[in-house]
Amino acid sequence: MSAPFAARHIGPDDEQVGLLLERLGYASLDALMDAAVPKAIRSGGALGLPEAVDEETAATELRALADANFPGEPMIGLGYHGTLTPAVVRRNVLEDPSWYTAYTPYQPEISQGRLEALLNFQTMVADLTGLPTAGSSLLDEGTAAAEALALVHRANRKAEGPFVIDADALPQTIDVVRTRAEALGLAVVVASPHELPEGPVAGVLLQYPGASGRVLDPRPVIDEVHERGGLAVVAADLLALTLLEAPGALGADVVVGSAQRFGVPLFYGGPHAGFMSVREGLERQLPGRLVGVSVDAEGRPAYRLALQTREQHIRRDKATSNICTAQVLLAVTAAMYAVYHGPQGLTAIARRTHELAARSAASLRAGGLEVTTDRFFDTFQVSVRGRASEVRDAARAQGLHLRLVDEDTLGVSFSELSSAATLRGLHAAFGITPHETEPVQALPPELARASDFLTHPVFNTHHNETSMLRYLAKLANRDYALDRGMIPLGSCTMKLNATTEMEPISLAGFAGLHPFVLPDDAIGYRELIAQLESWLAEVTGYDKVSVQPNAGAQGEFAGMLAIRDYHRARGQEQRDVCLIPSSAHGTNPASAVMAGMRVVVVKATEDGTVDLEDLRAKCEQHTETLAAIMVTYPSTHGVYEETITELCDVVHEHGGQVYIDGANFNALLGYAKPGEFGGDVSHLNLHKTFCIPHGGGGPGVGPVAVRAHLAPYLPSHPLHPEPEKRSGVGAISAAPYGSAGILPISWAYIRMMGGEGLTRATAVAVLSANYVAARLGEHFPVLYRGESGLVAHECILDLRDITRTTGVSVDDVAKRLIDYGFHAPTMSFPVAGTLMVEPTESEDLGELDRFCDAMIAIRGEIERVAAGEWAVEESPLRNAPHTGRALVGEWDRPYSREVGVYPAGIDPDKYWPPVARIDQAYGDRHLVCACPPVDAYAD
Amino acid sequence: MSAPFAARHIGPDDEQVGLLLERLGYASLDALMDAAVPKAIRSGGALGLPEAVDEETAATELRALADANFPGEPMIGLGYHGTLTPAVVRRNVLEDPSWYTAYTPYQPEISQGRLEALLNFQTMVADLTGLPTAGSSLLDEGTAAAEALALVHRANRKAEGPFVIDADALPQTIDVVRTRAEALGLAVVVASPHELPEGPVAGVLLQYPGASGRVLDPRPVIDEVHERGGLAVVAADLLALTLLEAPGALGADVVVGSAQRFGVPLFYGGPHAGFMSVREGLERQLPGRLVGVSVDAEGRPAYRLALQTREQHIRRDKATSNICTAQVLLAVTAAMYAVYHGPQGLTAIARRTHELAARSAASLRAGGLEVTTDRFFDTFQVSVRGRASEVRDAARAQGLHLRLVDEDTLGVSFSELSSAATLRGLHAAFGITPHETEPVQALPPELARASDFLTHPVFNTHHNETSMLRYLAKLANRDYALDRGMIPLGSCTMKLNATTEMEPISLAGFAGLHPFVLPDDAIGYRELIAQLESWLAEVTGYDKVSVQPNAGAQGEFAGMLAIRDYHRARGQEQRDVCLIPSSAHGTNPASAVMAGMRVVVVKATEDGTVDLEDLRAKCEQHTETLAAIMVTYPSTHGVYEETITELCDVVHEHGGQVYIDGANFNALLGYAKPGEFGGDVSHLNLHKTFCIPHGGGGPGVGPVAVRAHLAPYLPSHPLHPEPEKRSGVGAISAAPYGSAGILPISWAYIRMMGGEGLTRATAVAVLSANYVAARLGEHFPVLYRGESGLVAHECILDLRDITRTTGVSVDDVAKRLIDYGFHAPTMSFPVAGTLMVEPTESEDLGELDRFCDAMIAIRGEIERVAAGEWAVEESPLRNAPHTGRALVGEWDRPYSREVGVYPAGIDPDKYWPPVARIDQAYGDRHLVCACPPVDAYAD
Repeated sequence: MSAPFAARHIGPDDEQVGLLLERLGYASLDALMDAAVPKAIRSGGALGLPEAVDEETAATELRALADANFPGEPMIGLGYHGTLTPAVVRRNVLEDPSWYTAYTPYQPEISQGRLEALLNFQTMVADLTGLPTAGSSLLDEGTAAAEALALVHRANRKAEGPFVIDADALPQTIDVVRTRAEALGLAVVVASPHELPEGPVAGVLLQYPGASGRVLDPRPVIDEVHERGGLAVVAADLLALTLLEAPGALGADVVVGSAQRFGVPLFYGGPHAGFMSVREGLERQLPGRLVGVSVDAEGRPAYRLALQTREQHIRRDKATSNICTAQVLLAVTAAMYAVYHGPQGLTAIARRTHELAARSAASLRAGGLEVTTDRFFDTFQVSVRGRASEVRDAARAQGLHLRLVDEDTLGVSFSELSSAATLRGLHAAFGITPHETEPVQALPPELARASDFLTHPVFNTHHNETSMLRYLAKLANRDYALDRGMIPLGSCTMKLNATTEMEPISLAGFAGLHPFVLPDDAIGYRELIAQLESWLAEVTGYDKVSVQPNAGAQGEFAGMLAIRDYHRARGQEQRDVCLIPSSAHGTNPASAVMAGMRVVVVKATEDGTVDLEDLRAKCEQHTETLAAIMVTYPSTHGVYEETITELCDVVHEHGGQVYIDGANFNALLGYAKPGEFGGDVSHLNLHKTFCIPHGGGGPGVGPVAVRAHLAPYLPSHPLHPEPEKRSGVGAISAAPYGSAGILPISWAYIRMMGGEGLTRATAVAVLSANYVAARLGEHFPVLYRGESGLVAHECILDLRDITRTTGVSVDDVAKRLIDYGFHAPTMSFPVAGTLMVEPTESEDLGELDRFCDAMIAIRGEIERVAAGEWAVEESPLRNAPHTGRALVGEWDRPYSREVGVYPAGIDPDKYWPPVARIDQAYGDRHLVCACPPVDAYAD
Repeated sequence: MSAPFAARHIGPDDEQVGLLLERLGYASLDALMDAAVPKAIRSGGALGLPEAVDEETAATELRALADANFPGEPMIGLGYHGTLTPAVVRRNVLEDPSWYTAYTPYQPEISQGRLEALLNFQTMVADLTGLPTAGSSLLDEGTAAAEALALVHRANRKAEGPFVIDADALPQTIDVVRTRAEALGLAVVVASPHELPEGPVAGVLLQYPGASGRVLDPRPVIDEVHERGGLAVVAADLLALTLLEAPGALGADVVVGSAQRFGVPLFYGGPHAGFMSVREGLERQLPGRLVGVSVDAEGRPAYRLALQTREQHIRRDKATSNICTAQVLLAVTAAMYAVYHGPQGLTAIARRTHELAARSAASLRAGGLEVTTDRFFDTFQVSVRGRASEVRDAARAQGLHLRLVDEDTLGVSFSELSSAATLRGLHAAFGITPHETEPVQALPPELARASDFLTHPVFNTHHNETSMLRYLAKLANRDYALDRGMIPLGSCTMKLNATTEMEPISLAGFAGLHPFVLPDDAIGYRELIAQLESWLAEVTGYDKVSVQPNAGAQGEFAGMLAIRDYHRARGQEQRDVCLIPSSAHGTNPASAVMAGMRVVVVKATEDGTVDLEDLRAKCEQHTETLAAIMVTYPSTHGVYEETITELCDVVHEHGGQVYIDGANFNALLGYAKPGEFGGDVSHLNLHKTFCIPHGGGGPGVGPVAVRAHLAPYLPSHPLHPEPEKRSGVGAISAAPYGSAGILPISWAYIRMMGGEGLTRATAVAVLSANYVAARLGEHFPVLYRGESGLVAHECILDLRDITRTTGVSVDDVAKRLIDYGFHAPTMSFPVAGTLMVEPTESEDLGELDRFCDAMIAIRGEIERVAAGEWAVEESPLRNAPHTGRALVGEWDRPYSREVGVYPAGIDPDKYWPPVARIDQAYGDRHLVCACPPVDAYAD
């Protein structure tokens, strides 16, 4: 028997909670929350959740759920393949808090480890696809294809004609692209790429190899589409590309796909790393994150995110995509798989996979069966005339999952997991006696790979486990993650990712399951998902939840599609205006646009709340076309706005739907339910409130929750285990349940906290934010507060006056925090020139005070600048962060070395940033997005 | 399909092996080994091992073996209890390479993390036992008791009378103590402590609570034994001590026990951390390692091993113990369990455990059963008159393992795992209907704990998981382990501990099994052990192997006992002389003495080999009394001595047995078998050659291997699953199979390498050592080589001339290596003033060269001292290691800051030692072996 889990999750213990309350002048957490949360939105009664269980019980229950799935050997293909995660990568990346608790690398000086890993990913994708620039991952192959569709139209605004999708593309890719195209009003045609429709085409997406397994030469199609004025997108399989010529070398403009089979567990569909690479000239059109090489203040190469002006947090409704999350943890895993195997190792895996497939096809043919795929890499189809279900079941009895194409046809897909035993099982299932057959050349010789790949030393050095282990440890040691200290990021809720929540995702029953197995082989997952969806509905006050969206932005998109289809179903298709407050996160407008809406901005009043006057005016103005409002609650200003219910009423009166962004749900859970106080739809960020780790910049999970009238418009999926969900709004993620593999984390959190624990967590999060606001408010103005004088779960520190009077910028403070041993808060969002601090409930008083002390000390340093003692350019603030290197050279600064590196006192456990301040602009001017040559680092 | 495991384990790939061979002038590995290994000892043919399997297959096989065990709920007691390893500790200590791949903290400057963790362990034991000084762990409770027996006689050389062991002591403790006493010729009596034999007694060992569960007041016995001139040893249960008064407060001189139930998995018997604490005045008599606080060159407190002059590596046959290994990894786990729960948490666990036991006893009594234990903590006995087996089996059917005391009596022992479900199962098994009973006070009120414990802040701070995670990460970050770089320790074989080898030890079937379950509930373990023993017999050329010894020193002791009993059985009990070459590791003479032998030293010739002339002379001289020779092969000088077969012949001719120490078996595996070339008995170090990690200073496993004539004299165990092994030589470890829980590591290694892989590993280890000898031999004399001019798997660099002419010591070089990013080689063993380097096969050419480059650069620095450019006292060698703190103060040294910290060039990934050079002598003069107050660290 351990302490209740809630006491492990919540940082401050009873005594510390007492001290914090005393500081704020409240008698109890209840009193604090009564004052903070507007009465109008308070939910009555306790949460209707099962009683909390201890960690061991939750672990036991999750093991039972995992055991109720049957992974077997996945031979279904369709973009998901058996793979072996190297144990050294599993233990030291996927299971290592220094990787999985890291935040998005917005502070590049303390993110060099995962930025290098992502650069490896980009180089790997660029090399294998044969195109110069690859992004640092997308959500999955389906959305990568949809992003390519958008890119094609962005890059070529004059494009005419439809976007043609290969009829042999993955079915989920077709559905995801169609959903997106439909929302954007773009024409899509599904056709054989060799039978393009007449006239101009905007673009073509070719699957290479196809879903059926067939490998066609893409060159004629690429040439044709180029002639017709369009762009050629190829959806490719990375493993196949070790043997097949790179699409880039064949003329493709864009290549997309999934890196799943590079060591990323199947996870019943996700999370995996989607990818996209583009030809020269399209870099600035890339959606999502891109890592580039720049230089630091000491002149050495340093990594950071490149071309951020493309992204939604800056470009808002003009962004290249609404995507805010990448799949960093999985991209790192895939990249390290390539680092560990190297080009020869990957080729050997591909060759062996291919040879097993070819031997099997030959045996089946020799056994009298009709193999209908001639040229293939790892997948072929077999015609069995009416016996398909029967053979599928026989294979299942052998532990093999096959693809049922139709009643006459089976798909058979080989992978790294396949072996001679696979062949035996397969032959038994098909009822043939294996023959020794001639080796068959099933790969088209004219497409044999001629171009080099993965020639960089990083892919040719760490092939023994000792070296691999050290490389992973070295990169992890460069980064600042939650295992070092607080990451007080406003709106990102960087709380504890408890080990008991994390351990189950490695269980074979969860990690190894293909998303398209028969429903009976996924009983554990389906039960877990049903429970989780019902628990999320309970805590949000909505009627129905879908976990399909695999990022917050996807949840927003799904929510907006539901609103759109609801209006359409009521004959109100003209409703396309989406109101968005000026303070909204950039993802909101980007998502609204993606759902085909027009964004109308609603002003904020001086105190930061939505300007109800302006809202009313805008509603009046657009009363006929009002589709929705997207509003975050508590607001992005970290305040419980008293007017939220009125806001909802106004929008409803004008026929609009209310979308309440759940990014800040950590301030509501247990106290207020958006579905009860006026919301029609919300998304939640399970990677914020519900403890899925940020993974260094993904995975995320963004379930969408709706009231009953919107339930018919939740995402569907063409291969959904529940037949009634196979059509509808369309798929918005490649897998029916999105990132199913990490849902056990949130399930465990809710199971172990129970309603009471979750509610207390919310109160302590609000308590801690108010404590920080109280302590720091004496030194930095706190920009917004609610009517009670309280903030919600975060607070905004206003540095604008300081910057104006001293020149010390938010950047300077953020980088100086590194010297004090902290990750910076959110910078300049939602208000430029400010820092937004969210401590969460997981940080105990010691850490809260350490942070406040550091901020106060920095305020003292600013005073010395203000007093003229230090010129800002020569101050420790501007020179931050200080590296070990800075210490050993000449020292002509107006402060001592000790003040530079040990401002909080000499600390033998100091975190040393590996690079000094990075020049962001340099990197965008000199764009390099692949591993630089080793001699670039020569000192 | 991955690359074969051997290619992952062995650092240099084919190309690098080619380069190394070229450098040495050999055409192939075969040619090298033909030259290096004397023909006379070469074994013929390939190893008779199963063919290598890949990592996934081995993992699958191990999961099946784990699943063939039935952990259930262990209620057997007898020193082994159910416990919950906190998940955050499991993932971040037991499963974290930065903890488990660390070496023994002989280089304290780069071991501060685990030294602090061990100091926590010592403080925890000292506090709970109520005695001021505790060691940093012993092998298990049984050997701790045996060490106490020896301590009692050491501390009081005039002691008369027998050592009395409580008849209610753990049966395995009684057996282990008897085995040890018998070897030392000490009298032991097993008796009720309240009925001491007449006359003086040397000491008493009391079990508190007893094996039966009963809690007796130890004070009368302690007073009595003190009056009779003896010392009082109490074997105590740490969890019980949160409720029961500390033995130290009751007058005990020594307290021993096991920390297993503090979060250390049962592991079918081990590894666990045994402990010993002593009253003031006995510190210098402690066996094993002791961590103490000293100061570093910059004046701050720093931890290091204290009073090392007690230990076998210095005191040899006069040492306090032969033990060289501690159980660091498990001691850290136990300490962190206490850190995470704190005094209140531990007390709550104890109280809940006790209350369940008390409720159960009351229910059983109410149900008409006779509970024969009145005063107990967690364990009681029930009389069932002839039905004991039947009830035991009924309980087993409920998933509960009970203790069968005799045909009438069952033992029932509760633990942290117990719950209401346990009570239900138990009542069903006993066939009673549970009654609501009055709460029973089963603890003796006069023994209620009154003294404080765990008041230090470290036990009262990290009770939330976030804080715990960061504390563990902080400590890990202080240490240099294999995840950072090479640890080239001669004779310690710090090779890769592969993840696939490590993962299985966490499987519930391996981790959760009690050592005394019915044999049918341990089928997986028993099969694994039988296979491992047979494989080890095959590779060593012996006939029989026992894995019981849980450290190399235990293997030596077991081997010497086998020799002793063999001679005795042949009527040659006068044979008690053990020849030991002067170069032997200190453990050899210490073990020989422990087995009751007289040590006679054999000289070495100038070239470092055993002086055969002297050997012959000594054999002649002792021909009637010669029992054995203990010899290491290859020698501790790192040389394949050509004369080994002759040596064996000479000893055999004089009636002696040949003990070949297997410490250096990594140089023989696949090429020569000690059991074939003259050995009668050997031990192996599975934590060297067979990949069990060093764990920061333990666990170790030291199987003993013998030829057939010695097989009857292998260790027995009173509770062995195989009845024929229940009596004989006696137990030398507390558990029948010693540290069973980590045997899967070595099993996996052999299974994945196969004979060919193991053989290649040996050759590459020898190749790499010779490469290092060749490169460094140009800069430092290599002290010994074989006749071929080759070394074996390690080489000795002679610094004596350097020290004489420049004052630069081996210490200076060792500490300076830290600045270059390395752990030092073995210092001053086997020859004072030298460094012994063993690279192992796991280090690739890049790392070998990085090390050689560093050593050559250091040689260059020595030249500057020699040239008078730097005074040695002011040189970077003497000032090493350089901390961040040193950099920020005044700098008046004759070299630059950069030369100080970045001698190998500026490295953003530099390892920063947390402290400067530690003053060893200061700490021994001012002995502090518990956590110092926090303000001691004020800067």
